[in-house]
Amino acid sequence: MAKNELHDDPAFARHQGGKVCVVARAAVEGPADLALAYTPGVGRVSQAIAAEPEQVWKYTGRANTVAVLTNGTAVLGLGDIGPEAALPVMEGKAVLFGQFAGIDAYPICVNGRTVEEMVAIGIALAPTFGGINLEDIAAPACFEIERRLQEALSIPVVHDDQHGTAVTVAAGVLNVARATGKRFDDMTVTIVGCGAAGTATARLLVELGIGQVIGVDRAGILHAGLPGLPEHHQWFAEHGNHEGRTGGVRQAVRGADVLIGLSGPGAFEPEWLTEMAPAAAVFAMANPIPEILPHQVPATVALVATGRSDFPNQVNNVLAFPGLFRGLLDAKARHCSREALMAAARALAALVDSPGPERFIPGVFEPGVSTAVAAAVTAACTGAIAPDAGTRTALREPALAG
Amino acid sequence: MAKNELHDDPAFARHQGGKVCVVARAAVEGPADLALAYTPGVGRVSQAIAAEPEQVWKYTGRANTVAVLTNGTAVLGLGDIGPEAALPVMEGKAVLFGQFAGIDAYPICVNGRTVEEMVAIGIALAPTFGGINLEDIAAPACFEIERRLQEALSIPVVHDDQHGTAVTVAAGVLNVARATGKRFDDMTVTIVGCGAAGTATARLLVELGIGQVIGVDRAGILHAGLPGLPEHHQWFAEHGNHEGRTGGVRQAVRGADVLIGLSGPGAFEPEWLTEMAPAAAVFAMANPIPEILPHQVPATVALVATGRSDFPNQVNNVLAFPGLFRGLLDAKARHCSREALMAAARALAALVDSPGPERFIPGVFEPGVSTAVAAAVTAACTGAIAPDAGTRTALREPALAG
Repeated sequence: MAKNELHDDPAFARHQGGKVCVVARAAVEGPADLALAYTPGVGRVSQAIAAEPEQVWKYTGRANTVAVLTNGTAVLGLGDIGPEAALPVMEGKAVLFGQFAGIDAYPICVNGRTVEEMVAIGIALAPTFGGINLEDIAAPACFEIERRLQEALSIPVVHDDQHGTAVTVAAGVLNVARATGKRFDDMTVTIVGCGAAGTATARLLVELGIGQVIGVDRAGILHAGLPGLPEHHQWFAEHGNHEGRTGGVRQAVRGADVLIGLSGPGAFEPEWLTEMAPAAAVFAMANPIPEILPHQVPATVALVATGRSDFPNQVNNVLAFPGLFRGLLDAKARHCSREALMAAARALAALVDSPGPERFIPGVFEPGVSTAVAAAVTAACTGAIAPDAGTRTALREPALAG
Repeated sequence: MAKNELHDDPAFARHQGGKVCVVARAAVEGPADLALAYTPGVGRVSQAIAAEPEQVWKYTGRANTVAVLTNGTAVLGLGDIGPEAALPVMEGKAVLFGQFAGIDAYPICVNGRTVEEMVAIGIALAPTFGGINLEDIAAPACFEIERRLQEALSIPVVHDDQHGTAVTVAAGVLNVARATGKRFDDMTVTIVGCGAAGTATARLLVELGIGQVIGVDRAGILHAGLPGLPEHHQWFAEHGNHEGRTGGVRQAVRGADVLIGLSGPGAFEPEWLTEMAPAAAVFAMANPIPEILPHQVPATVALVATGRSDFPNQVNNVLAFPGLFRGLLDAKARHCSREALMAAARALAALVDSPGPERFIPGVFEPGVSTAVAAAVTAACTGAIAPDAGTRTALREPALAG
């Protein structure tokens, strides 16, 4: 990109000097104040935490702090551009955490190529943070990094590309059922692009009780007969595609109630979509150019969502991650449970009163979205709802009485 | 400490909820703004950085950001209390970085016990930060961690317990010479407590041309005849104690022009201090209880400094680290050179017009301290002063033209 292009693009002006800063909650006005906020007063606070570790949640910012952690190996649709180039994205995420949920989120872009390195870094950083939001880490490494970090740590670890997307899309699919009057457990959902987001979305839909998911990746429709599938694709063969369908995207789309694109521009031919079930829905989420543009979708399809703000029904993770973490932090959860994710999806869906073509996903800037999601997540974590949940999110010790 | 004591102590009220927060430089007001600060606009910024890595300094907060990094192995005078208990101290440091130098400093307290782990963590974190301020890491590990990180990275790495203390104390010693009319290169300085701070102070004093430093640690006066000294104590035997003095603190104090305590309460008997050179100075820096209280110092000693704000001449690192990093960041320095440290000490000393007993070290809250230190450091890094400097701080590429 030539330099004059950069300077003509208002996005660059918006980024100059960065998008977040660190601010004191109260200024240190003079020696007496310094003696409280710093030495010797701070020494007494440190001693108290050393004696009773749970005090860290009360006397530091940790309880409201999330690390937005990446190695820059799968940034947006740009691929493996490295940690420095990922920094504007993580700063953006930090801005959104603050704006939508009042969370102090730090962008942390690291040199760490391997699963081992990323797990070590996450474990190292944990004492500073109330939660870790993994971001833009390539599949399949992201799955193992998330799993191992969550096993090792007693703070919630969420991979937004998986879980933020899964919650948002699942909310949309829940509302497709409401809008069309179909039974959720009768619906077939075809997912094209089975990386981090596609796999997590499929898993959450199955947990929510979807009839069937069919995954399509480079190898075509994922089925039990395909040799050498990676673990996350094997999952689709084992938990989805009950009919043992084979073929490509066109075969996967046929008869489907919902088609979810997490792939790239041009992946969906309009003609294929006429072969979907009646009252079908298409989520064309490739960004900035969707798999198919809304005006190209045949009229036989009832509902259309994209990742873009200039069409109705924008599927954007910002609907999920601020409220999800707000709820986890408020609950003092030790991990992000499956019940928390399900509760978040249901709460997000419930924000739309009468789902229909113009609106079956809440707007990003609608007031109350993160609050509603947070309340549902906190309730799920503390066992206040979801009585049918098999397991509960383990909680940290209750906050110390003020 | 009993809970009611905690709640009666105003330091705890000052710490509730933490001392720093992360704030957006500009709110995301609506979809158009989101498209600039986040997707798709942020993608163009990330692409530009991927294509031209130096752009990260312009289009992210990195150029103004410092990691305040610790493993909590030597926190204040409290020792190895771990990363969680260290967090209030690092938050305090972040507040001071912001208040005194406008730097966005993140407290990062990590699980990392070994040199290898801490070096790996520092290298991992580097892409996010413009500099790394190591803090409260135990000696001797701190020396190797700092050295290896600075070798591996092209951003400045400073260990505040070493260099912040060294700069501040050296400024005081420079002003002892001015106040007493002694020649700096004739003075003997005895340092009691040769850990991170004592060793770095001695080294900087020697580089500034002090006559002689004598180090005293648990083994007594450090001299060439002592077997099995660790490397940093060996340094004192090789570069100090030219007279080959032996014995304990009392023997080390005799005839000294300056006595620097970095040890603990009660380390200095008043009677020993009467044996110092005429017009001597005592820096009793143990905190919160100094090696000797000012009123216990015999009248034969001309100048007294402590680490406390309730006596004249408070030696506090906050005089050094904000301006030091401001200068390094402004210069886009790739490392913190010895010339930068010397320039910082000289600039700090020069802030006192007529050094004397009541004032030979600037006050922490005096306006202009960090600005003066920063200007001197930037000048030293860019070669604008210090023509006799053997090496210059390597600089990053010049900032891209706006």
